[in-house]
Amino acid sequence: MNQLQQFQVVPKAMIKLKDIDSGFKDHHESHKEATGEIELLQSRLRELQELLYADGRSSLLICLQGMDTGGKDGTINHILAAMNPQGCRVEGFRQPSAHELSHDFLWRIHQAAPARGEVAIFNRSHYEDVLIVRVHNLVPQAVWSRRYDQINAFENSLVEHDTHILKFYLHISKEEQLKRFKERLDDPTKQWKISEADYKERLYWDDYIAAYEEALSRCSMEYAPWFVIPADHKWFRNLAVARIVVEYLEGLNMQRPEPRVDLEHIRREYHAAKES
Amino acid sequence: MNQLQQFQVVPKAMIKLKDIDSGFKDHHESHKEATGEIELLQSRLRELQELLYADGRSSLLICLQGMDTGGKDGTINHILAAMNPQGCRVEGFRQPSAHELSHDFLWRIHQAAPARGEVAIFNRSHYEDVLIVRVHNLVPQAVWSRRYDQINAFENSLVEHDTHILKFYLHISKEEQLKRFKERLDDPTKQWKISEADYKERLYWDDYIAAYEEALSRCSMEYAPWFVIPADHKWFRNLAVARIVVEYLEGLNMQRPEPRVDLEHIRREYHAAKES
Repeated sequence: MNQLQQFQVVPKAMIKLKDIDSGFKDHHESHKEATGEIELLQSRLRELQELLYADGRSSLLICLQGMDTGGKDGTINHILAAMNPQGCRVEGFRQPSAHELSHDFLWRIHQAAPARGEVAIFNRSHYEDVLIVRVHNLVPQAVWSRRYDQINAFENSLVEHDTHILKFYLHISKEEQLKRFKERLDDPTKQWKISEADYKERLYWDDYIAAYEEALSRCSMEYAPWFVIPADHKWFRNLAVARIVVEYLEGLNMQRPEPRVDLEHIRREYHAAKES
Repeated sequence: MNQLQQFQVVPKAMIKLKDIDSGFKDHHESHKEATGEIELLQSRLRELQELLYADGRSSLLICLQGMDTGGKDGTINHILAAMNPQGCRVEGFRQPSAHELSHDFLWRIHQAAPARGEVAIFNRSHYEDVLIVRVHNLVPQAVWSRRYDQINAFENSLVEHDTHILKFYLHISKEEQLKRFKERLDDPTKQWKISEADYKERLYWDDYIAAYEEALSRCSMEYAPWFVIPADHKWFRNLAVARIVVEYLEGLNMQRPEPRVDLEHIRREYHAAKES
């Protein structure tokens, strides 16, 4: 099946996350069985990124969102690390600084947007401003409720300026999250990362789900789609994201520019230099 | 032999690049033979970077400089791509913009400096301001000649603020460069990258060598050493850079912080959640 359609949130449809199976793994039975496909996708991804850079006419923005332990870091590491780091930037959006808060919420996002030829991966994004901000009432509802349209307008402008936008919600179950917290707890190399606060956010699980549902439903556009990625199986999550990015980039009409110089002239110079 | 010493420019010594064999390959005979060591170094590099991030007390700045085709891109791709992209940024310094030129030459460099826990790799750097700028007289000698001390003072300040600085000059012969230009010429996927200007810079080869010799000699400090990496063999270049970075990071006393939370308390909460 067409990957771009399989996981895409249909524009203007209201989605319910509980109706989507976070443990889905398609026709592969195990990670081992999927390894071959994952490796093929990684090398294809690298070729396509090189072509995006050479082509130089457009950029790619990938947004990753999800609950804590949902796998944002893992997705970036295992799949997108296949890319050439020189043409690909990862931007993490943490709690905004006082200076950032003195601007509008899209100000710091716009600065991090990819240049033509470039890929930018957002680890969290402007969507936090309708997620954590909404769940914890960090600004009044009158403010955050206008942000969906503001986000759509902003993303539309990026797209009109030759940015391709793909947004992924990494969908895990509440049980899977608990399991992952437990793993962190039992791994001495990861204990230092645990904060009480992360764990406490579980109390707001349903509020987050509601906030995600509204964001995904209202901001999945033909020009900037959201995808809901079943992510209980880490390998399937990696596979699905890679499939979508590859399929999307293959659909673009990208090509290397013609040589800018007279190659014959340079060939003659080369031979002259060699003989001297 | 100690890698940090083998290729390091001794502080206050004047070096002559023609005395250094750009084709050196140590005890390995071929790329194939070195593959095992390169892979080990890559995985060690990744572990050490993770530790640098966890430790969070210092940052690492890697400067790469070299002639055209010297292998800056290749070094970044093949060795340093082993790093987790989320803790590692590549910054390319091209011709400065009008806005950048209206500031001092270190202004844009300082902005790109790595934060604690982070690695930044500079593809070209502030050294261009005593290289191409000097060779082509882009500013008067009275201006560029003061920059060596300004660079040393700037780097010293970064180091005093917990940045580790390692600088690599990728050393190729003039013949090797010609060979690489020829390869580019014969590769249809690379022809679009060729500009007459790059090629013409060969006319200034000796001026560049002189400028490099002065920069390497005057700015190799105990606190921010320059290394001259034999780079005619791409695999040896990758090996040597990785060895030095690994050896340097292993010499730091890095450690993961203690857990910030009461793990037992969280364990009890976990079990309570599981039972509910």
